[in-house]
Amino acid sequence: MNAKLLLMLTAVTANFCASVQAAETLSSWADYEARAAIVEFVETVTNEASEDFVPASDRIAVFDNDGTLWAEQPAYFQVLFAADMAAAKLKANPALVTESPFKELAEGGLGAVASGGLASLFELLQVSHAGISNRDFQTSVANWLESARHPTTAQPYTAMVYQPMLELLTYLRANGFSTWIVSGGGVSFLRVWAEEAYGIPKRQVIGSRNALSFQDNDGDPMFMREASLSHINDGAGKPVGIQQVIGQRPIMAIGNSDGDFEMLSWTTSLGPSLGVLIHHTDSEREWAYDRDSSIGGLDRGLNEADARGWIVVDMKSDWEQVFPQ
Amino acid sequence: MNAKLLLMLTAVTANFCASVQAAETLSSWADYEARAAIVEFVETVTNEASEDFVPASDRIAVFDNDGTLWAEQPAYFQVLFAADMAAAKLKANPALVTESPFKELAEGGLGAVASGGLASLFELLQVSHAGISNRDFQTSVANWLESARHPTTAQPYTAMVYQPMLELLTYLRANGFSTWIVSGGGVSFLRVWAEEAYGIPKRQVIGSRNALSFQDNDGDPMFMREASLSHINDGAGKPVGIQQVIGQRPIMAIGNSDGDFEMLSWTTSLGPSLGVLIHHTDSEREWAYDRDSSIGGLDRGLNEADARGWIVVDMKSDWEQVFPQ
Repeated sequence: MNAKLLLMLTAVTANFCASVQAAETLSSWADYEARAAIVEFVETVTNEASEDFVPASDRIAVFDNDGTLWAEQPAYFQVLFAADMAAAKLKANPALVTESPFKELAEGGLGAVASGGLASLFELLQVSHAGISNRDFQTSVANWLESARHPTTAQPYTAMVYQPMLELLTYLRANGFSTWIVSGGGVSFLRVWAEEAYGIPKRQVIGSRNALSFQDNDGDPMFMREASLSHINDGAGKPVGIQQVIGQRPIMAIGNSDGDFEMLSWTTSLGPSLGVLIHHTDSEREWAYDRDSSIGGLDRGLNEADARGWIVVDMKSDWEQVFPQ
Repeated sequence: MNAKLLLMLTAVTANFCASVQAAETLSSWADYEARAAIVEFVETVTNEASEDFVPASDRIAVFDNDGTLWAEQPAYFQVLFAADMAAAKLKANPALVTESPFKELAEGGLGAVASGGLASLFELLQVSHAGISNRDFQTSVANWLESARHPTTAQPYTAMVYQPMLELLTYLRANGFSTWIVSGGGVSFLRVWAEEAYGIPKRQVIGSRNALSFQDNDGDPMFMREASLSHINDGAGKPVGIQQVIGQRPIMAIGNSDGDFEMLSWTTSLGPSLGVLIHHTDSEREWAYDRDSSIGGLDRGLNEADARGWIVVDMKSDWEQVFPQ
């Protein structure tokens, strides 16, 4: 085969992907405004004849995780993991019950820990997240995901991803987008399961980070997880995390809380771009919460979405299905 | 076209790339051990019949930049940029001559600054690297690269990349590798020119980082560069940088100094993998330096390369051409 023929075949392949897989993929999305706006945006930036055409290398779509790609109630799942790990540690060593956060956990569960504020939650997280190797940490996450079940749905946590978002990820990738997770959650927590759940490889996951120290460990090198955070990927930390890792502005950002505000405002500050907020409105199939929620609070985003041209997805009416069956 | 045919075409395309572009690409490499070892490694990990086959998604090759992809004498080029920027600032405001680092620069040039050690060099760097937006910083880098010329070769700095390494990058990519820069230099400095010079996109550049703060700037968001570093990507910082951004161990690492030691030792600690050190041995076509050099010092690497199975490239004999013509 010569080079010219190769180029021709490659071009045919690329066109085939872009045109055929368009809107049919989004089968769990009701045929309303939100879906139409997403499809119109994608068809515009992939249309070479459009003045808003964006080359594939710049088609970067960033997704928040908790409350955007999977559920986040009654608490962030990573916090539920941390509580389970702390409970197991306490069971193995009951003498710990005199110390925080084990004391609060034993007396009043996660609620008692949370009532101590962010500092207490951080302390709970560090019981399982710091002072061990990253390898051992990821093994414990994998084991937990295998056996743990959600407190109200009794489903595995990885079954509580949103079917319409899986379809959106597939649709965007079929149209030449690279899809990224940009989460307040921990990057090493997410990387354990993001590829299988979302088709997003490790290198396209941006999250909060425990500081790591590299240790030779007698020729079997490893990373130790330190108790400090080297990056907090929330709020204004999300654009910073994206700039550090990707080095350029995305053209599409999808979130569900005010922790995503800066990510959306940066993304939509210039050129062809789209901001999307997932609004949790479905208390029957999922949960309903927004302005006053301590988890996934969405207030400023709702106030400013219209003026900024952001799409607000009404989970109850826009999604015909919430979780995969 | 149906999906089966598409898959077939894609497979044909992939095989074509892997098999035809193999060793011919490396035309500036002498037909000695180093070249043979690299080709053997690539042919092994891309051979599905081999027990050392590595799927394309795991074929991660990491390259140091200074002294590995481009020259680094008589000083790191990013430091020469910083000195030029500081000199211009002093010219515009001569009253600065009483303050460090302008005083040392005016009295004894870069040598006088360097004699103050790392703290003085850091101070020099921050004159141009901190307290401005990342956008303005990158514009100043681009302008400098356009007009500045190397003090001894009188070439543009981007012409002082190594031809054999450009060929190696091309060869690896043709064989399904992703190629990454993992540099002690600044990530935002590198991203200005890495794609044009090496074909390496912004998202595949890992470097040292000034802390960034995200600012709304009246709806025209920007990143301000703070005076502190949020990551120093040298020595043990290189594996940490790779782990943070890519999230997995590379299978090939190429460096030239002891600042690359941990990157190579991690990369080659397990499974099919290759470590390569570029040894600067050619005082006529480039520079000759190693154990005692304050720039690109290579001592431990030379001592341990044999025992660790790392390839040492002798620039003088292994490279038939050094710079592009």
